[in-house]
This record gives sequence, C-alpha cells and structure tokens, in this order.
Amino acid sequence: MDVITLAHGAGGQLTKELIEGLFYKYFNNEILLQGNDSAVLPALKGKIVTSTDSFVIKPIFFRGGDIGKLSVCGTVNDLVMSGASPLYITVAFIIEEGFEINHLERIVESIAETASAAGIMVVTGDTKVVEKGFCDSIYINTTGIGVLERDIYLSGDRAEIGDEVIINGNIGEHEASILIQRGELGLSGELKSDCALLDRLIIDILDNCQQVKVLRDPTRGGIATTLNEIAQQSGLSIRLVEDSLPIGNQVRSLCRITGFDPLYLANEGKVVVFVNPAESRLVLEIMQQSSLGKDARIIGEVIEDNKQRVYLKTNISGTRIINSLTGELLPRIC
Amino acid sequence: MDVITLAHGAGGQLTKELIEGLFYKYFNNEILLQGNDSAVLPALKGKIVTSTDSFVIKPIFFRGGDIGKLSVCGTVNDLVMSGASPLYITVAFIIEEGFEINHLERIVESIAETASAAGIMVVTGDTKVVEKGFCDSIYINTTGIGVLERDIYLSGDRAEIGDEVIINGNIGEHEASILIQRGELGLSGELKSDCALLDRLIIDILDNCQQVKVLRDPTRGGIATTLNEIAQQSGLSIRLVEDSLPIGNQVRSLCRITGFDPLYLANEGKVVVFVNPAESRLVLEIMQQSSLGKDARIIGEVIEDNKQRVYLKTNISGTRIINSLTGELLPRIC
Repeated sequence: MDVITLAHGAGGQLTKELIEGLFYKYFNNEILLQGNDSAVLPALKGKIVTSTDSFVIKPIFFRGGDIGKLSVCGTVNDLVMSGASPLYITVAFIIEEGFEINHLERIVESIAETASAAGIMVVTGDTKVVEKGFCDSIYINTTGIGVLERDIYLSGDRAEIGDEVIINGNIGEHEASILIQRGELGLSGELKSDCALLDRLIIDILDNCQQVKVLRDPTRGGIATTLNEIAQQSGLSIRLVEDSLPIGNQVRSLCRITGFDPLYLANEGKVVVFVNPAESRLVLEIMQQSSLGKDARIIGEVIEDNKQRVYLKTNISGTRIINSLTGELLPRIC
Repeated sequence: MDVITLAHGAGGQLTKELIEGLFYKYFNNEILLQGNDSAVLPALKGKIVTSTDSFVIKPIFFRGGDIGKLSVCGTVNDLVMSGASPLYITVAFIIEEGFEINHLERIVESIAETASAAGIMVVTGDTKVVEKGFCDSIYINTTGIGVLERDIYLSGDRAEIGDEVIINGNIGEHEASILIQRGELGLSGELKSDCALLDRLIIDILDNCQQVKVLRDPTRGGIATTLNEIAQQSGLSIRLVEDSLPIGNQVRSLCRITGFDPLYLANEGKVVVFVNPAESRLVLEIMQQSSLGKDARIIGEVIEDNKQRVYLKTNISGTRIINSLTGELLPRIC
C-alpha cells in the first residue's frame, strides 16, 4: 500500500512525482501545465468574483459525495450566488502523513469530474504534508474565480417587503446524512447528502427572471442562520410558514428522535431565492423542471418589520422567533 | 483566557461575532464588508494571475515573522514572480479547538499589516474549527489575485544559454532559523527568517530591465530544487559557482554542524533572476540598492547542455551535479 510521506510535501522530487503522476493525470489543462508558481489566466470582461472555503469534513467519503466533490460544489455554488459564471478553481491539500495514495487518487478524480461538470479548470494548487496526528487524513481548500457578465447585483441587502422566499427542495439532508454516517448516535439509514452543483439551475433562473434580489446557499447553520443573515443585511424580517417547508421523511424522523431542528441542519445542494412575487411562480416552475428542484417550494416572505427577525408561523397557528444557530450541532460537516 | 470553540466554526452566532469583532476590525474594506458568500471585484484590464498556498509552519510565531506574515508574503511573492501586480487575497483558517483568541488576533493583525504593506485587500475568507488534536493550532490558506499589466511572459521555459542567474542575498536563512527555533537539535542562535515581501524589488527590476526571462522564489527545496525545475522547463543546464554563493556565517556554521546543505534550505524572501548578461549588472545594482538585496550576487549561468542538470563548480576546481531535493529535511517549514 503506497502512502503519502512527509517528503511528498517537501517541494522536491517526490512532490514533483505527485504533481506530474497524479495531479496532471486528472487536471489536464494548458494553464496548469505552465508549471510556474502562479497561473496566468486570460483577461476577463466584467467584474471578477472570488470565493474561498476550506473543507475538513468527516468522513471524507460519504453517501452522495466525498470531500473532493464537496470542495468543488461548495466554491462553485458560492460563486454562482452572485450571478457569476464560474471559470477557474485552485486546489490546496493538507494531507496527513500515512494517507493512502489510492484514497488521494479517488479524491483527485472526484475533483476533476466535478470541475468538468461545472465547466471550470483547476489552474493551480499546493500540497502540504503534516506529521501523523496533525490533521485528520486530508483537508482541502478551494478558491474559485468567476466573471459577472450580467448587469446585476445580488446581495442580502436587496431583499424588499413582499419578496417571496423559495427553496429548491428538501432541507437538512447533508448534515442529517453525515450525522447518520458518523454512527455516533447509533442511527442508521440510507439518506444521501444533497451535495450538488447549482450552477445550471441558477443560470436558468437568472436567464429567465429579472426580479431576483438575493441568492444564498444555506450551508453551515442551515436556513435559519442564512435567513437571519439576510434579515440583518436588509433591515427587514422574514416570515416562514412551517407547513410549507419541504422536509423529507428521513430527516423528519431523525429530527424527531434526536431533537435536532431541520431549520438548522446544513444543506450542500440548496439555494434560497428572494424574488418579487410577480416572478415567484416562474422561479418555482424553473426549479421544478430541474432534477435539483422537484421539491421546490415557496417557504415564506419578507415582511415590514425592522426587528430583523425570522418568524415561523407554526402548524398550530402560533408564531415563534427563529434565531441564528448558537453553539454547534455537529463539528466538521463541511 | 478566551479560546476558539467548535461553535466559532459552525457558521452561526459565534462565527458571526468572530467575523465582525475580529476580522472586520483588521480587514476593513468595502469588498469584504459586502458580507455575501463571494466577493465581487472590479473588472481588471490585463491577464489575471492567481496563486494558492496553505501554510502549516511550526512554530507559528518565529524570529522574523509569523504564520500570518508568511501566508501573505508567500502568495504575494508567487504572484509577482509572473510580473503581476498583486491586488487581492483570500484568507481561510483551519483552527484547532482551544486555540487562544489573542494568538488569533496577533496573526490576523500580522496578515492585515503585511497585506497593507503589499497594497492588497483581504476580500473574502473562511473559518473552520476542528476538534482538539486534529490540527496543530492553526493552518492558513491564502489565494492571491493580481493583474499582469506588462506585456511580458516570465517562465522557466524562457531561460536561454548565456543567461546569468542572480539572487538577492544570503540563502537558507528561513529554514535554518526554523530549525534552530524548533530546538530539536539543541542548536541556538539569533538567526532570523528572511520572510519578506518581494513586490517592490521585483517591480523595480521589471520597470528598469527588458531582458529578464525568469523569476522564481526558491522556497521549499531551496535553490537546488528551484534551479532544477528551471533546467527541466528550459531543456538546458545551469552552472553555479560555489565561491559566489552568498551564505551567512550562521547558516554556514549550522550546516557544518548538522551536515545540511544550504542549497536545499528554504528561503522566504529570496528571488532568483535569469537575465540576459547585457543586463545582469543593472539587476545587481537595483537589488543592492534595496534593503532586501544588499548581499545580491551573480551565482551562475545557463549553459549549453541538454542533460537539464544543475552543476556546482566547487572551490577545489571540481564540478558536482546538484539534484532536486529527495526526501525531506524538516517538515512544516512553511
């Protein structure tokens, strides 16, 4: 069994073999093959958009994805939330000494496949190796670069009274799935992470709708935290309707057993859209035509209330305040 | 003593407090304060240049710098090696649960100071927290974005027969200094890392010289490995002259005691310049006028030899082949 050694991260002969034998095999493009310290990209017409994320998820291979797929989806999704077209990505590995090279190859292959599905190029990277016990198998940073070709400004502060809030499907499935797979609570089930690229869905929406104000992917902290951020950015409040929240049966029963609230569970293939009500049906129809949006729903609206809160109208006709996540549910879900 | 908890990385209330209370305090610019998932930057005229690096150095505070300063210098230096003007940087932290917040603040302040010295903005970031024992206090990824406004192409494959190889000062001081500070070999001394921003020096050189072919910073693997990379990219060989290598007394005696070879020790404030001999004096003079180049020297030249090797003409009139680093000297030097 071939494993990663400290020398693979020393910048010498073994680093070179790893780059040429493994990374160039899967990430094959003219820019990366320049082989210099930095990547020179063509000039771009339009504003440039960038986003960075490090991924420390445990386990690294999970139902619905792996740390490689997640590293690309997470960064591509952050770019497209601004309306940008993603173009390039950088990939930096921190690897624990002793990590199996065939596991690294699976991850690299997954990064390459996901990047290819998103139509982006891996243009430069970095590999560091730390001694056994100083990281948990592998951590990955990706940074994306895209271009904003549309004349739009999507931002939390653009939400307006009356805007409807739409989500493209069932909430909480990424975190619930990771929770099950950690095995710590003795739960079982086949629930898959919703980890997915949202680029095509967002492009379809923006190509057809003129009155989208905000796009945001409700990852860590779930939709509760994401919607609180937007309430604060806009200075308004948001009212959700409990009955309208799309929640799958497996997440529902997991939450019943554990006491977790699906509003706080992380998603990795969901987007919340704030749109003028004149276009909310259109957004919903576009979502429902996509495999990533068949369970799409209007879940709430922006209301005139400067307390900057998120309210939930419950099934028993009451209303409760939904705060941002405090504390943490589960470490290392992304 | 306030410490980082898992909740600081959960994306909820404590993450927000860390961002607003600490990061916004030091990284204060309009783009970062947009507060969305990605940063929208102005359009750029010219080719875009990007580079990424993760930093896992031990110790995180060292003579001559800290992991924050190093994270900015490393990425800025990689950008300028292409001739680009650095503009923006992203910063992503992986922090161990229990890490002292005042240590994080020192690092953030150091990042902000170094970014300011380089005239660049921290435009977006990420914070992940892992459980105690799953990283060694803090790891940082930075990704830089710059613009190539000059009509030049600097690359290892541009080296030509007769080009002279110049370095801006004493070699090996970063790695030697880290080695001493680890204390593992019972060595002592006040040697400082050479960690520095090279942007101004490179701009001065490129503003005044037309025949520079390659710029490269000899970090991990030292000048031996860097020059081997360039020999391979260009298909030529390089001959160094041992007598001309600038080596400080402390590195010289450390190498005598430990058996390390200064050619393989990492630098963090050095650049090797390949230039047509017609301009080598000019490059040398520009370097020597800078505080970062008072010990600059011509150390060798490109020779007609398609074996793609690096040769060292030794003091006793012999010549030996200098290979790339094999194995590793010291883990986690950057």
